[in-house]
Amino acid sequence: MPAQIRIALDAMGGDHGPSVVIPGAAISLVRHPDLAFGFYGDEAVIRPLLESRPALAAVSSVHHTDVAIRMDDKPSQALRYGRWKSSMWLAIESIKKNEADAAVSAGNTGALMAMARFCLRTMAKIERPAIAALWPNLRGESVVLDVGASIGADASALVDMAVMGAAMAHIVLGVERPTVGLLNVGVEEVKGLEMVREAGRILRETNLPSLDYIGFVEGDDIGKGTADVVVTEGFAGNIALKTAEGTAKQIAGYLRAAMSRTLMARIGYLFARGAFAALREKLDPRKSNGGVFLGLNGIVVKSHGGTDAEGYASAIDLAYDMVKQDLMHKITESLSFDHRAAAARASNADVA
Amino acid sequence: MPAQIRIALDAMGGDHGPSVVIPGAAISLVRHPDLAFGFYGDEAVIRPLLESRPALAAVSSVHHTDVAIRMDDKPSQALRYGRWKSSMWLAIESIKKNEADAAVSAGNTGALMAMARFCLRTMAKIERPAIAALWPNLRGESVVLDVGASIGADASALVDMAVMGAAMAHIVLGVERPTVGLLNVGVEEVKGLEMVREAGRILRETNLPSLDYIGFVEGDDIGKGTADVVVTEGFAGNIALKTAEGTAKQIAGYLRAAMSRTLMARIGYLFARGAFAALREKLDPRKSNGGVFLGLNGIVVKSHGGTDAEGYASAIDLAYDMVKQDLMHKITESLSFDHRAAAARASNADVA
Repeated sequence: MPAQIRIALDAMGGDHGPSVVIPGAAISLVRHPDLAFGFYGDEAVIRPLLESRPALAAVSSVHHTDVAIRMDDKPSQALRYGRWKSSMWLAIESIKKNEADAAVSAGNTGALMAMARFCLRTMAKIERPAIAALWPNLRGESVVLDVGASIGADASALVDMAVMGAAMAHIVLGVERPTVGLLNVGVEEVKGLEMVREAGRILRETNLPSLDYIGFVEGDDIGKGTADVVVTEGFAGNIALKTAEGTAKQIAGYLRAAMSRTLMARIGYLFARGAFAALREKLDPRKSNGGVFLGLNGIVVKSHGGTDAEGYASAIDLAYDMVKQDLMHKITESLSFDHRAAAARASNADVA
Repeated sequence: MPAQIRIALDAMGGDHGPSVVIPGAAISLVRHPDLAFGFYGDEAVIRPLLESRPALAAVSSVHHTDVAIRMDDKPSQALRYGRWKSSMWLAIESIKKNEADAAVSAGNTGALMAMARFCLRTMAKIERPAIAALWPNLRGESVVLDVGASIGADASALVDMAVMGAAMAHIVLGVERPTVGLLNVGVEEVKGLEMVREAGRILRETNLPSLDYIGFVEGDDIGKGTADVVVTEGFAGNIALKTAEGTAKQIAGYLRAAMSRTLMARIGYLFARGAFAALREKLDPRKSNGGVFLGLNGIVVKSHGGTDAEGYASAIDLAYDMVKQDLMHKITESLSFDHRAAAARASNADVA
């Protein structure tokens, strides 16, 4: 029997807690029979949900705790009352104890990042962890990072993100040497923030073996799918992600209004029902649910707080893929190529 | 006869030059018979286009120059060969000479901003000019700034933008005291970049009479229409704008593909043609074409470079409204309320 992939689940995280987490795990288990789960949270709620799912129960353990992190607590508050004992903390800690290969939580993002940093620590060569999102585009999908952890990241952190994002894209997209673009306000080398220009210079000059740096990309390149990996600092990345979500909802709203406006439109809608279903599926945010925390000594995946069981299963699937295809090893390997030294050499050559 | 609104047009700007600029002016003139135009550019191309439009020709003057700014030149290059003599420069300069009330160009944004700053200078209390865009949302429209001029703006520049954006929203949306939100990665006061938090503190404490500060907003609030004015630094603002444009194109692409996939979908499309036309109109980027440069001693509007005559006419309409309803005066008036002193007072009160 091959080794199981062990995922720790913060059963209390998210808007719906165990009522989404447990059915989500059941869905993911059907797709990946080599999964095993540790559920962290209120045993009295978790057990009954497991009992009605014997296949899931057979590969699951339950770890009781009364403490759950609230969705609107500040990270510092959450750490204060939730460290060592909350369902979120215990799920993360199980990675450190080698009782799990990855953790998934739909809880408070800030608290999850704070606890993951505190518990797992950043990888040896990484200064700042990042959150990477899968972003659907016209050509398929891309990895966009950072979508909110590294507010004000510098050039060196952006280069680290390029390396980590490429390792993730290698797994998710199955591309040997993913293309990487730096998000900027123009494609010319003279444009944008100094840190972005500097990161571009380092990536160009070091020409890393694990990724194909294609230069600056702009906001509209994300939807086009110009690059497999789009790298940006956390403030702009978070705003880009949420603006895109907002725009998608806005257009869906326009479309709904247009299709119910006249009788002819409603008849048209009936004929084209299949097409609208396909469109809805294409735009389904549950399909690409899951932000991967990169740069920590362990794999932590953040699910959307408001998602349903199907969406939660996508987040588990993502964690599964990252473990199965050894994300941690791929990042370590890429980082062992010392890009800073290479950049310094390239830079000195410039001066000489 | 009431005073005319005089608009200077850079006839050579944009991807299509006079073949879009002159028909665009003709469209706008029908809507606003009190318009008058100065066309700056190649007389040999402009004259024939005017001759076939006698109503437009009757309110227009032509100012010949051989020099046109190229779309891909750096601002420094453009200034070097285009200052004093290019069609772009001359259109801007006509404001300074009081031969026009506003200028419109579809040319190179960076060059246009550099020339406008050089020629018109920033307003007395303004440190950095900004570009404000009209952004369609589920409730109507909002003013979003800065979408690309003030890369790395500080707290004080963000406060100036709030004031200027509110003055513009007052005109465009007809709201007495527009609501203003600061774009951030969360709505809590502890979140985000220091400069954004500081700007939030100033806006909250000064409680300006010209605007209603509602706190931080996130990327998805732009599409929802949570605030009349959304303020952000130019890097994040440009990325938000282009990401939204990219997302809209992406969804339009999905929709087209879905509607042509099956016979039933194509039949449905035929029935719902009117609804799709309404949707297209709703998403038509030409309707909200035009970025207004704020903070200069004069009104300059940037049209999209690739737009058609209809889109160009929207940019002229926008310039017309700004002049007609006296944007410059509204900004000066708002700025005469010394928000920095008020903030200092509020801050001292905090300490005491």
